[in-house]
Amino acid sequence: MPIPAAASDALARLLGSRFSQAQADRDLHAQSETAHAAPPPDAVAWPLSTDEVSAILALCHEHRVPVIGWGTGTSLEGHALATQGGLVLDLMRMDRVLDIRPGDLQADVQPGLTREALNQDLRATGLFFSVDPGANASLGGMAATRASGTTAVRYGTMRDNVLALQVVLADGRVIRTGTRAAKSSAGYDLTGLFVGSEGTLGIITELTLRLHGQPEEVAAAVCAFPTLDAAVECVTMTIQSGIPMARIEFVDADAARAFNAFSGAALHEQPHLMVEFHGSPASVAEDARRFGELAAECGGQGFDWATTPEQRAQLWRMRHGAYRACLALRPGATAVVTDVCVPMSHLPEAVAAAAADIRAEGLLGPMVGHVGDGNFHSQILVMPGDAAELGAAKRVALRMAERALAVGGTISGEHGIGIGKRPLMAAQHGEALGPMRAIKQALDPHGIMNPGKLIPD
Amino acid sequence: MPIPAAASDALARLLGSRFSQAQADRDLHAQSETAHAAPPPDAVAWPLSTDEVSAILALCHEHRVPVIGWGTGTSLEGHALATQGGLVLDLMRMDRVLDIRPGDLQADVQPGLTREALNQDLRATGLFFSVDPGANASLGGMAATRASGTTAVRYGTMRDNVLALQVVLADGRVIRTGTRAAKSSAGYDLTGLFVGSEGTLGIITELTLRLHGQPEEVAAAVCAFPTLDAAVECVTMTIQSGIPMARIEFVDADAARAFNAFSGAALHEQPHLMVEFHGSPASVAEDARRFGELAAECGGQGFDWATTPEQRAQLWRMRHGAYRACLALRPGATAVVTDVCVPMSHLPEAVAAAAADIRAEGLLGPMVGHVGDGNFHSQILVMPGDAAELGAAKRVALRMAERALAVGGTISGEHGIGIGKRPLMAAQHGEALGPMRAIKQALDPHGIMNPGKLIPD
Repeated sequence: MPIPAAASDALARLLGSRFSQAQADRDLHAQSETAHAAPPPDAVAWPLSTDEVSAILALCHEHRVPVIGWGTGTSLEGHALATQGGLVLDLMRMDRVLDIRPGDLQADVQPGLTREALNQDLRATGLFFSVDPGANASLGGMAATRASGTTAVRYGTMRDNVLALQVVLADGRVIRTGTRAAKSSAGYDLTGLFVGSEGTLGIITELTLRLHGQPEEVAAAVCAFPTLDAAVECVTMTIQSGIPMARIEFVDADAARAFNAFSGAALHEQPHLMVEFHGSPASVAEDARRFGELAAECGGQGFDWATTPEQRAQLWRMRHGAYRACLALRPGATAVVTDVCVPMSHLPEAVAAAAADIRAEGLLGPMVGHVGDGNFHSQILVMPGDAAELGAAKRVALRMAERALAVGGTISGEHGIGIGKRPLMAAQHGEALGPMRAIKQALDPHGIMNPGKLIPD
Repeated sequence: MPIPAAASDALARLLGSRFSQAQADRDLHAQSETAHAAPPPDAVAWPLSTDEVSAILALCHEHRVPVIGWGTGTSLEGHALATQGGLVLDLMRMDRVLDIRPGDLQADVQPGLTREALNQDLRATGLFFSVDPGANASLGGMAATRASGTTAVRYGTMRDNVLALQVVLADGRVIRTGTRAAKSSAGYDLTGLFVGSEGTLGIITELTLRLHGQPEEVAAAVCAFPTLDAAVECVTMTIQSGIPMARIEFVDADAARAFNAFSGAALHEQPHLMVEFHGSPASVAEDARRFGELAAECGGQGFDWATTPEQRAQLWRMRHGAYRACLALRPGATAVVTDVCVPMSHLPEAVAAAAADIRAEGLLGPMVGHVGDGNFHSQILVMPGDAAELGAAKRVALRMAERALAVGGTISGEHGIGIGKRPLMAAQHGEALGPMRAIKQALDPHGIMNPGKLIPD
């Protein structure tokens, strides 16, 4: 259903050339990183202010036009795809740092600012924004999808690092949630409700983020393990022992091979852990020593320390490039990416079962993971158009999710639901889908906010 | 409006002697720690299971009977008072530890279990539950009010330490929220929504809590400062410097006097900080040294170290007894307790302005605070029936709240809204009250869940 003329005329009057129904603009917003079908929206708008977002939503509410928020387009679950047509709201021109308050360890930003741009701005302050999903994603998108990544094991996810929001509701009303205080027990936690709501309840137009002091000392290393089991067992022992890891990332032998081919790494084609320690020189040395002992017990060997900032940057660039590197293992392939997260004691069995299942289906699915949280991914490579392969990949993904649910885990540790995980929502939430639907209905009665995402039909 | 006979007959059939309309039972549930009027409910029920809570709520939903959850009755904002009559649901017989999973650092508990009872059960595991509001409160009540306390600066509040819930909704439906995984991005954060909802959206019948490893080394100390400003300035510097304090508590000269009189302490009648460090022996020594340097810069002196577990227990028992100790400063008095929380950089001015205002009104209002979070309390002592004094205390409390809001803080850091802070909700949340009301209406259409609390009329 195209946008009614009354709405598109009003939007054009409001936004001028920042409203477009041109095919080229629509196609630019019809891209997915993963195997989801990506139809173009009917139109694209580039607002510059909260007032404009409010006016746009009021119009779309009146005319029942779907509204889909768009950031960097790096979602892996098709969150920003206009599967029911409508208007894509591209927030990337709202990309300013509004305020940095070093004494409060806080920054106020617009949603289109990326995490790397924020960290550039913070350099002189001695502070940094910790959440790091790999992609240089927009902070609004990261909040909307409750992103996390490599450092969540130490500094938390977006849930923990968003203190306050400005949100435009479906009908154009503008609200502020949360406060600048470190904690609050004043009413319903609307900030927590909008974080992870994937644009289905409103559009985030400002964020107050928690910052952290740059650690005095940082040390990073990569270490090889003889088997996948040994590497994962080392993670579980490390977390249970309480060593305050800043990062602890798992990489399987296929992923190591991909890094060698794509990033010029020289890793043994074995499972690895990539670790980082933050703290004072003394505490980093102690943490590294304790971790080293546990790794040795598990057969870890060949610690390769990244001692300079440049070496560390290279190490994490390699890790962050995992998605592209693994795709390159099979030219022309796209990916079905899994994202389960399980309680720590179940991590070894969950990773082992996934690996066995991928092998049994004859698939290539390199595995990486933020295993300090119990979160791991398989990136199952499938050729576009090969229905049998796609079916096999989806079966594997489904069984991973089912096994995660059976031990009290979640179908999504950090990628969110979007389109891809909707069929699993009932299995995870059961009766709790009822209140989710009631909240959606209460805040978006016409169902214009990112329809077809998160909540199953 | 008394409970309709059809409802009370059905409740009596369901619960036998665990349903009572006797005056003595009603009066036992008509008590407030603070200056709120405390009318008795029409009846009291003591359920033993989730199924019973579900059946009770279904009946009350059908017959439009208000339902008020009750734990230890230690709320300071009248949360559990039956201000509109109805049924008090006393959850204290649902007090079991259901499961402890040391490898996952988790425990499942029923809502009537108290935090001290849980920590007793955890002793042999080397783990502890961190949230510590002072009172030996029920864990269900702590979740419902988003409690925090002395250790939140290090380990977080109930928001951070509740992973999953079982909740009975207003109409008796039973849902599970959250998972046992360390993080999840699968749908709306219902756990976060129910934590802090003060019984207005449903009744919590099970909690999955995050546990922490007992620190290898603990050190605690109390230190005197020449002025209130100096003590608070030291807190701000400490937090900004990133020293990982396990506790950092402020006590003013009046509170020190109360501890001397009531707890047999021998403090100078000056402002003090009470601090605690957790970690390895080396890190505790380093943290204590760095804190000591900052304290000395601010004029702190006379560090009194509590080196044995017994001495530490005595120190924190004294701190936790602050409420009773301060009440005893003025026999017969009750209290208006304030609970603002401000961004760290505004803490010194906020505490100083509050102290000046209390003095200017001629009131006695000892101050204590979880100042590492920017959260502080004045316990303004008023004689019951003295309307002028109560009016003055409320004016002071209002101005503290207004000043907190003016710098982006909150009207309640940890005590919640209940009855007492409802008149301030509009000032804090503005338009965001709209979605709060919509959510309440969506989940509790007949308004039976703890009516008259949290959301203003």
